[in-house]
Amino acid sequence: MIGFMEEQLEKFQEHYQNRGRLLINCPDAPGIVAAVSKFLFEQGANIIESSQYSTNPQGGNFFIRIEFECPNLRAKAVEMENSFFEIAHTFSMEWRFTYVSKIKKTAIFVSKELHCLRELLWAWQSGDLLTDIGLIISNHEDARAEAKIFNIPFYHIAASKDNRASAEQKHYALLEEFDIDVIVLARYMQILTPDFVKRYPNRIINIHHSFLPAFVGAKPYERAYHRGVKLIGATSHYVTNDLDEGPIIEQDIHRVDHRDNVEDLKKIGRTVERDVLGRAVKWHLEDRIIVHGNKTIVF
Amino acid sequence: MIGFMEEQLEKFQEHYQNRGRLLINCPDAPGIVAAVSKFLFEQGANIIESSQYSTNPQGGNFFIRIEFECPNLRAKAVEMENSFFEIAHTFSMEWRFTYVSKIKKTAIFVSKELHCLRELLWAWQSGDLLTDIGLIISNHEDARAEAKIFNIPFYHIAASKDNRASAEQKHYALLEEFDIDVIVLARYMQILTPDFVKRYPNRIINIHHSFLPAFVGAKPYERAYHRGVKLIGATSHYVTNDLDEGPIIEQDIHRVDHRDNVEDLKKIGRTVERDVLGRAVKWHLEDRIIVHGNKTIVF
Amino acid sequence: MIGFMEEQLEKFQEHYQNRGRLLINCPDAPGIVAAVSKFLFEQGANIIESSQYSTNPQGGNFFIRIEFECPNLRAKAVEMENSFFEIAHTFSMEWRFTYVSKIKKTAIFVSKELHCLRELLWAWQSGDLLTDIGLIISNHEDARAEAKIFNIPFYHIAASKDNRASAEQKHYALLEEFDIDVIVLARYMQILTPDFVKRYPNRIINIHHSFLPAFVGAKPYERAYHRGVKLIGATSHYVTNDLDEGPIIEQDIHRVDHRDNVEDLKKIGRTVERDVLGRAVKWHLEDRIIVHGNKTIVF
Amino acid sequence: MIGFMEEQLEKFQEHYQNRGRLLINCPDAPGIVAAVSKFLFEQGANIIESSQYSTNPQGGNFFIRIEFECPNLRAKAVEMENSFFEIAHTFSMEWRFTYVSKIKKTAIFVSKELHCLRELLWAWQSGDLLTDIGLIISNHEDARAEAKIFNIPFYHIAASKDNRASAEQKHYALLEEFDIDVIVLARYMQILTPDFVKRYPNRIINIHHSFLPAFVGAKPYERAYHRGVKLIGATSHYVTNDLDEGPIIEQDIHRVDHRDNVEDLKKIGRTVERDVLGRAVKWHLEDRIIVHGNKTIVF
Repeated sequence: MIGFMEEQLEKFQEHYQNRGRLLINCPDAPGIVAAVSKFLFEQGANIIESSQYSTNPQGGNFFIRIEFECPNLRAKAVEMENSFFEIAHTFSMEWRFTYVSKIKKTAIFVSKELHCLRELLWAWQSGDLLTDIGLIISNHEDARAEAKIFNIPFYHIAASKDNRASAEQKHYALLEEFDIDVIVLARYMQILTPDFVKRYPNRIINIHHSFLPAFVGAKPYERAYHRGVKLIGATSHYVTNDLDEGPIIEQDIHRVDHRDNVEDLKKIGRTVERDVLGRAVKWHLEDRIIVHGNKTIVF
Repeated sequence: MIGFMEEQLEKFQEHYQNRGRLLINCPDAPGIVAAVSKFLFEQGANIIESSQYSTNPQGGNFFIRIEFECPNLRAKAVEMENSFFEIAHTFSMEWRFTYVSKIKKTAIFVSKELHCLRELLWAWQSGDLLTDIGLIISNHEDARAEAKIFNIPFYHIAASKDNRASAEQKHYALLEEFDIDVIVLARYMQILTPDFVKRYPNRIINIHHSFLPAFVGAKPYERAYHRGVKLIGATSHYVTNDLDEGPIIEQDIHRVDHRDNVEDLKKIGRTVERDVLGRAVKWHLEDRIIVHGNKTIVF
Repeated sequence: MIGFMEEQLEKFQEHYQNRGRLLINCPDAPGIVAAVSKFLFEQGANIIESSQYSTNPQGGNFFIRIEFECPNLRAKAVEMENSFFEIAHTFSMEWRFTYVSKIKKTAIFVSKELHCLRELLWAWQSGDLLTDIGLIISNHEDARAEAKIFNIPFYHIAASKDNRASAEQKHYALLEEFDIDVIVLARYMQILTPDFVKRYPNRIINIHHSFLPAFVGAKPYERAYHRGVKLIGATSHYVTNDLDEGPIIEQDIHRVDHRDNVEDLKKIGRTVERDVLGRAVKWHLEDRIIVHGNKTIVF
Repeated sequence: MIGFMEEQLEKFQEHYQNRGRLLINCPDAPGIVAAVSKFLFEQGANIIESSQYSTNPQGGNFFIRIEFECPNLRAKAVEMENSFFEIAHTFSMEWRFTYVSKIKKTAIFVSKELHCLRELLWAWQSGDLLTDIGLIISNHEDARAEAKIFNIPFYHIAASKDNRASAEQKHYALLEEFDIDVIVLARYMQILTPDFVKRYPNRIINIHHSFLPAFVGAKPYERAYHRGVKLIGATSHYVTNDLDEGPIIEQDIHRVDHRDNVEDLKKIGRTVERDVLGRAVKWHLEDRIIVHGNKTIVF
């Protein structure tokens, strides 16, 4: 990572040293917000932002994301989490505290199309993505120059239908070495094995170059062209073992017409893909996404 | 039809008595535009608007739509069309002249959801749809009051899986009696038989309440909800015998989020459906659409 | 009001008899959410939906909207509100409880363009606007037929630059007689006097046919045409005494191009205006809007 | 320019050596299309794409853009243009032939914000902008590294209110030395003098970070924030001597809400600005824009 970025991240950590987030998913019931907000108040935490949603107040699921400032947060984190067990137990919560100053480590996978990678790198350099981009992995050489500009380690690992398992062994080693939290498939055109996917549940973000569930699978722009659609789209989603069927995080579209051939669709599509992936990654890094079944709540 | 609308249509006919359109579809070749524009010039026609498109100048298909003013048009139409045969033959054209003052007759089919019907009736009353709405046909009674407001004949014809053929016999009789040119399925929730579809090629316009090809078939909003999409859409297309697979005329979308339940999606969707259908019907009435294979060119 | 709608509103009231909302605006400080949620919990209220926002956790303004279910709500409302005074005082809150079953009464003002009026009437008939439309007031006769269809009292009150004060005397009498809570200017092309505006602070909703602050004032489509913009828009806002300068509630746009003349812009614009106004009125009726300075928070 | 790009441009020139465009602006009259298409046919040219528009067939202005393939085009260009004088005279045309293989030379002006510059460089590198980017001029040093990556000459020329005339002398010298056809102000935050603007009529493209005519002038995002708009936009236009009042080429918007502070608006705005500027520059390079009065026709 270039020195400028290291400094920038250090400043972020310093600035947000007392910033925490609490995410909860539990059966809806009266008193949850009262209990949680009382708890945070007693910890000395000031709520900065809070969003909640209930699928159904009677017997449904309740979700909340709270962002708070708490003096001396890192020192008291363990005790705070321990104290929270009681409330969590009472309401049968799935929950997690996250700490903004504990910066997530990201790996970017890419093949030959670089527009999504560039988007992430520039957003990152502009301070819009609070993450440490640990490494870039590719089954091609095209992204090496890009990686070098930002002084990010680049690994070329040949990958194809025929060597999936052995390629992934190399991936695992690198992801472990770099202590990676989140994997972004920025137009990485290889399918991951179920084993890979299982290791990173709701932590692999893909960009698919269609408006899902239309055009699942290969060559979506070609198929969009032949179907004669009037809008093309892109979809960012968490990867599961059902191809292009994982929980959708974000989608967007752009208008096209009969004059646009497949190449035009691809060009237009690139601007949609990068925007959609950029937003999805930002929301993930900010702990804004809760996965529930095969859907996302984005706070 | 209410008196006000009759007057309005008569004024249109008077105003546009010399307005014609020429639509051509042929193999691309040098000299087509020169030949056609020379022909029109010699007929005394002044080109008002012209749009063209070629799938490929070498060996592709050429499409053109020309709107023109020509003094004394109705009187000279037959002779003009006869004179055009030579050029048409030279370039192997599919072609048609249409005359704006010869107003198309429309039948609207509707079931219980009235928002698309209303959109058409109001656009029509505002002078945005230059057509004669001959009759409204429904398999329910809900639209009768709407029809009455506009003094349009309303026919309730029970239709279901079990009586499709006999219901369509009644449809045929009415469509013939009213001399119908174009059929709009404004949320008509019955499937038409292949026989019906074959009688009106590229003349039946449907609105499907999804962003096709996503969610072909029944209950698209329910399925969109369960898939967790972040945008919902609507698609207007010509009806063919492949369900929801006909040539797409227009599509649009609206953003939704996790808070929107199926009822919300339906409400939001209604505003998209009516806009999309309204535009598609307008373009059809203005002879702006050329169907080529399973796609549309919209000029 | 037609019988069908009366029944529908009664069903709403029954269904939502225990549904309340609490809106708060106060200086941000630690413990607000804890105090309020504890209070509601002790009242037996279950939070259905809650949204909050702070301009700045240090010294900024805090806003929250809570929707809740509380058994026996109407009976205990007075006592609940009295009990809330202490918390309200502690945190220097501006606050209000609203009760969903206490249906707001709406007056619609309209001139000659009816598309926005129709949108409101249909949304209302479909159950999307939970309000009692008490009367329609116009300076023209054009909307009388529309009002009659829905059996809503219609009053033609001539209004112009020259008789503003006397016309408004008639308005006041009607608004009082019908006990009106909210006034919607659905393309009402007369300026209201400062006296009128002062009587209904943040309770008069206007639709302006441009993307404000572009094209403040008269003839926005003509001016948009002459400026050669590539998008046209509409803006719904609360009316203040600065023409078209009140707090913006909602805006939207539609793409246009050089082919569109002023008439085309008006037609396209109508579809944007009605959507924007429809959303703004819905949000107001659902108590989703908090005005802060000259801006809105829309929860 | 890097070797890769030189090769790419040479391939373009080779590929499009016989591709020409004819743009015409004249009083509308019968027979224009016939005369022009006959002329091109006789020259052996095959029309690839043609778009036309008339402000009014009676007494209005007529515009047409024709793209054609013509064997041996560069050799016969002079004679062809000479032959066209007669038709041009007959119809009082303003007209120009352009030749795709004669690649336009572009200068990019930029200050400290680099996102628009990057967009242009990447689009260019991807082959989406058929131009020779001759040099980058800046009143700051920030873009130097970017220029170096693409091996494009970079000139830092201090410019401020106080030295406008002398700075522009340096600009003129460079623009002449590099034989520049089109100047793109990619977030160049200095005002140009009337003398500069006069030298490059309809050849200076600016990106303004608001939805014009809203927020003309400085600090549009700050003002958008204070006005409480619900959408922010960007506008690309030709520069004239009326600040932000030149002919609009393209505009777009993105939705925002009360949570977005000025910094958020700027971040969101950057993605809109780059898309809008990218399209405007592409259309200019493809000779798709005709300026008429203070408006553009974009074919």
